[in-house]
Amino acid sequence: MTNETPRRLESYLSGAWRTGAGEPKPLFDAATGDIHALIGSEGLDMAAALDWGRTVGGPALRRHTTHERAMMLKTIGLKLLEMKDDFHRESLHTGATPRDAWPDIDGGIGTMLTFASKARRELPNARVLPEGPVEQLSKDGSFVGQHVLSPMLGVAVHINAFNFPVWGMLEKIAPALIAGMPCLVKPASTGAYLAELVARRIIDMGILPDGALQIVCGGVGDLLDHVTEQDVVTFTGSAATGHKLRSHPAIVKNSVRFTMEADSLNASILAPDAVAGTPEFDLFVKEVQREMTSKAGQKCTAIRRVLVPKSQEQAVIDALSAALAKVQPGLPSVAATRMGALASLSDRDTVRAQIARITTDAEIVFGDPDAVSTSSGDPDKGAFMNPVLLHCANSMTATAPHDTEAFGPAATVMGYDGVDEAIALAMKGRGSLVSSVFTNDDTLAAELTLGLAPQHGRVLVGNRDSAKTSTGHGSPLAPLIHGGPGRAGGGEEMGGMRGVKHFMARTAIQGTPRMLAKITGQWVAGAPAQSGMHPFRKSLAELHIGDQLVTARRAITLEDTEHFAKFTGDTFYAHMDEVAAKANPFFDDRVAHGYLIVSFAAGLFVQPDPGPVLANYGIDNLRFLTPVYFGDSLGVQLTCKEISPREGSVYGEVRWDCCVTNQNDEVVAQYDVLTMVAKSWPLPDDA
Amino acid sequence: MTNETPRRLESYLSGAWRTGAGEPKPLFDAATGDIHALIGSEGLDMAAALDWGRTVGGPALRRHTTHERAMMLKTIGLKLLEMKDDFHRESLHTGATPRDAWPDIDGGIGTMLTFASKARRELPNARVLPEGPVEQLSKDGSFVGQHVLSPMLGVAVHINAFNFPVWGMLEKIAPALIAGMPCLVKPASTGAYLAELVARRIIDMGILPDGALQIVCGGVGDLLDHVTEQDVVTFTGSAATGHKLRSHPAIVKNSVRFTMEADSLNASILAPDAVAGTPEFDLFVKEVQREMTSKAGQKCTAIRRVLVPKSQEQAVIDALSAALAKVQPGLPSVAATRMGALASLSDRDTVRAQIARITTDAEIVFGDPDAVSTSSGDPDKGAFMNPVLLHCANSMTATAPHDTEAFGPAATVMGYDGVDEAIALAMKGRGSLVSSVFTNDDTLAAELTLGLAPQHGRVLVGNRDSAKTSTGHGSPLAPLIHGGPGRAGGGEEMGGMRGVKHFMARTAIQGTPRMLAKITGQWVAGAPAQSGMHPFRKSLAELHIGDQLVTARRAITLEDTEHFAKFTGDTFYAHMDEVAAKANPFFDDRVAHGYLIVSFAAGLFVQPDPGPVLANYGIDNLRFLTPVYFGDSLGVQLTCKEISPREGSVYGEVRWDCCVTNQNDEVVAQYDVLTMVAKSWPLPDDA
Repeated sequence: MTNETPRRLESYLSGAWRTGAGEPKPLFDAATGDIHALIGSEGLDMAAALDWGRTVGGPALRRHTTHERAMMLKTIGLKLLEMKDDFHRESLHTGATPRDAWPDIDGGIGTMLTFASKARRELPNARVLPEGPVEQLSKDGSFVGQHVLSPMLGVAVHINAFNFPVWGMLEKIAPALIAGMPCLVKPASTGAYLAELVARRIIDMGILPDGALQIVCGGVGDLLDHVTEQDVVTFTGSAATGHKLRSHPAIVKNSVRFTMEADSLNASILAPDAVAGTPEFDLFVKEVQREMTSKAGQKCTAIRRVLVPKSQEQAVIDALSAALAKVQPGLPSVAATRMGALASLSDRDTVRAQIARITTDAEIVFGDPDAVSTSSGDPDKGAFMNPVLLHCANSMTATAPHDTEAFGPAATVMGYDGVDEAIALAMKGRGSLVSSVFTNDDTLAAELTLGLAPQHGRVLVGNRDSAKTSTGHGSPLAPLIHGGPGRAGGGEEMGGMRGVKHFMARTAIQGTPRMLAKITGQWVAGAPAQSGMHPFRKSLAELHIGDQLVTARRAITLEDTEHFAKFTGDTFYAHMDEVAAKANPFFDDRVAHGYLIVSFAAGLFVQPDPGPVLANYGIDNLRFLTPVYFGDSLGVQLTCKEISPREGSVYGEVRWDCCVTNQNDEVVAQYDVLTMVAKSWPLPDDA
Repeated sequence: MTNETPRRLESYLSGAWRTGAGEPKPLFDAATGDIHALIGSEGLDMAAALDWGRTVGGPALRRHTTHERAMMLKTIGLKLLEMKDDFHRESLHTGATPRDAWPDIDGGIGTMLTFASKARRELPNARVLPEGPVEQLSKDGSFVGQHVLSPMLGVAVHINAFNFPVWGMLEKIAPALIAGMPCLVKPASTGAYLAELVARRIIDMGILPDGALQIVCGGVGDLLDHVTEQDVVTFTGSAATGHKLRSHPAIVKNSVRFTMEADSLNASILAPDAVAGTPEFDLFVKEVQREMTSKAGQKCTAIRRVLVPKSQEQAVIDALSAALAKVQPGLPSVAATRMGALASLSDRDTVRAQIARITTDAEIVFGDPDAVSTSSGDPDKGAFMNPVLLHCANSMTATAPHDTEAFGPAATVMGYDGVDEAIALAMKGRGSLVSSVFTNDDTLAAELTLGLAPQHGRVLVGNRDSAKTSTGHGSPLAPLIHGGPGRAGGGEEMGGMRGVKHFMARTAIQGTPRMLAKITGQWVAGAPAQSGMHPFRKSLAELHIGDQLVTARRAITLEDTEHFAKFTGDTFYAHMDEVAAKANPFFDDRVAHGYLIVSFAAGLFVQPDPGPVLANYGIDNLRFLTPVYFGDSLGVQLTCKEISPREGSVYGEVRWDCCVTNQNDEVVAQYDVLTMVAKSWPLPDDA
């Protein structure tokens, strides 16, 4: 490994791999100190790259639907999984052990695959996404409104941190690409060789349209001078850089959507019930040790502040010290290594300086920041460091442990007196990505969690029942938001489909139902509808939004209701007991069952012959709006509302607007009927 | 009116009405030039006011639930409506005619009432709001996640524009107060007397807890130096000021949530089909004239760019000129006045200067910016101005009409050649609050609207069918978002309950189902449940989250299915035809109806005696997950999931988790049953 020729990293911009001008800078192997790669982007045309993304990548992505784009990511993710050994090999140079690399590489690919899968489950298969209900803006229904989400027309510029070269790239491009926005990734120079390798493999696959993914290895030059109101800039890294970017003239002037995720002084709290000897105490100690040492503590979500009941301070310090004593740094390539190296020698210098600052308010109770003892590797060449535990005795008046981040294997134990003080201490972090609470008492969990919530993007409760399944304090997950207020940058990433919306524009559309239906591609009550062949006879190839069936009417009688009650066993008093029904504030008399109404409605609208409608898989938003009395006569208007063909399948989802009215044209029940419908009929033989 | 003593405006800060030190500044009546009020906030302690909001107002608001806070706003709104004549009288001094004041005063109060009503309909009655589905984070269901929204702990600082003193205040405090955040309003000095009067009346009502609403009349002094990560700052006004605020050191450093809504160069588009002689042509001309002259054109949503097919340029100019000729400015207090005054003489100077800039790329085709002819009032004392129409012949190459805003009764007509060019022209505004399209062709409407969407916060389609009901190009509405990218400031306000969330923190919570249920106050599958008395026997006073009924099982037979088919008429082939059912990709044999499953389920879980459950008003998220074959045996687990008592009513909503399983414990159907349940039982006699 040490004898490799350093690889010259390239940037993929404006449709070609490019090398910067001038002398490239060396990137060192974190554990050996050898030069592993060379980086430089001098003279590359950033304005042209943005333009390429906007004019080539964006239009190509927007020609596809959400599901088509998600399928691209699924294919890419699966192919990346096959290549992951290459990535793990490259990752060793960052100082990360294979175990540390797992969340970066496997976790990053997994996040991309989760987005690909959730998008197909949770978003309609469309180019523009209607959001939220149709709002009635006039009494007569002739003027309505709805929000739509459409891909922004610029480039998503992702300026990423050094610590997760793969995850940091994939968790950001996945939602952006699903949204339909091309990406330009700028990995931190430290570790950029790993990000470049993965980006190269993705681009080589040829699955994404050209312009959908660009990467710049080296400085961004004047890139930010050229961002406009349709671009999005995301930043993960230090607060100082983040604040500079946020104030960048082009970002300010053009109101560029800017998301920042910075390190924070995350606290983990041992609740008052979780005293030494409880499973939660042990889980807490294990989690703090893990968070301090995994990735050598270089995680924005790592536990920096260890908040424990005053009575447990010494017990926690003792247990943590014992646990940390087992962790010696060493070469990531050696199997026995429990902790790898920091990213660089200069990073180690910074961590040492920060620990020194914290000691103005705290004392070191375990470890020595300056003395390095490794299990393997040369402590003078590799950026090795042993874990350091501090203790702050005056937690409520101290400032350093609450505002000084040592981005390495270090944390400070602080005692608290009562739950309110625990919350107050956590709040002193002035906004964090995550906090965790270890307790088996759900009342304490609720009190602490709700107290912490406004100041934290994520709060994890750990206890014995989730000991084996908890994903841990430090792991952001694709379905959950990642970000936090204040010091954590005030940003929000991922969170499932919320993350996709970060790259889409939200627009309120107003007009007549006909206009709205045409614009959103979803039928809206009041929009034109076509009758003719029973719509259940139509495959997706023949079915159109607005295809409608208006049924004959059917009376509901006393006998029907009593029969249904007897048949189903549903003898609720409102259906059976005249006196009780009349005493009910909602009814003037006995009423028919809601379930009878929807059953009769199905009887009215179903077409019985074998055909393209394959199954009714559910109902959404059913509301009973007018009581049905005996003798009322029901009719159904069933209208094709939304068609979402399923990629790679012989069928798709069709949502029907189902409106049941009585003889006075009052709406009795309103709901969406969800069906699976064949793309063509008959189905192909191999279906 | 002219002989009144100017009123000295006060600021309500830290629990008292206060007067600034030093010499106050005069505020002039826009139409008469008389001094109407005096303003100044020198020396007032802004840091203390923020602290008062955080420590007194916030905690008091957070002790209430969403619905309780919404009820406060409803009461306030109804009382304000009774006082609206006072507000209209005061509004005359701003230069606005009574008709112009309607969207400000009546519209502002209406917006507050809409929020109060929507919040009670659309949000649970709770202190913390669960958001989105429970996410399964482990295969065995022992570790789950969900997002919650909780009120931010700081103060919502609203820095408002001069043109809508009432609406601008109420549309911002309504969502913030419902969210549980105290507000500090800083109205623009121009027109501050009206905002102060309304705020004073609200505070005098004593409905809001002290600290929930503060107002500063005059400059904000050092207020922004003291904002922290839990505060929110919203700004409406000029882009220059907005950019300065966005870059304020405390806002940047503390990642303060900052929302900006700036004026924009909104375009209205006459589509190619809407040629002279069509109803849409006439509607377009009427709308442009209205937007140019209502509020004397001082609306952030006003139409500034009039985009028309090249063939229609002269026809539009002629028709608009004729319409504008009928509008002469005059005293707002005179009933015949069609257009009032600008806000001040200096505003008029600015408008004239901006029109002069636009004339570098356009020529004036109607009106004279410098010559004033009024129907009443003294053109030398009042800020009167006649409408000015410009025409730009080189629309695609010109810059001034696309980037120069004359915030008064002026607009520029520009010709386009084809739909793509119309969109390209609109885009040259670099982000707008709103655009409108006049067309009767829904294909053109869709093409134009979707093209415009990413660059606009709102797009209105106007045509003959909504001529009488359309709320118009210029009106933001409470259920729809208000804001836009780029020049419009990149912010988003209102949009129904989206607007409430702007003042809440989103936190991802992870833990076991037991922990999550305790934290969110909603039962989660896997959380502990209590059995005992049938939960339908319990009023809200006795019912608890997790109260559960596990029913006996009931078989579904071939006979049941055939009977149900015959009874309801639902003879869908999957239930009736063995061959067809087996050919279906979802089924191995004939299956029972979904509607039969839910009907039998109700038969299993219903308690028939008169009791506190008053009505089943609907079902949410019903999914059929496993086919039910004949001979399968179904059982139901019904669990109380969410309790939302209705303020001011004898009942409330209860949401039940309904899980139907078969004899193999496979989930057959999963849904929420929605019921109305009495707060106590029996109901009070007057219910």
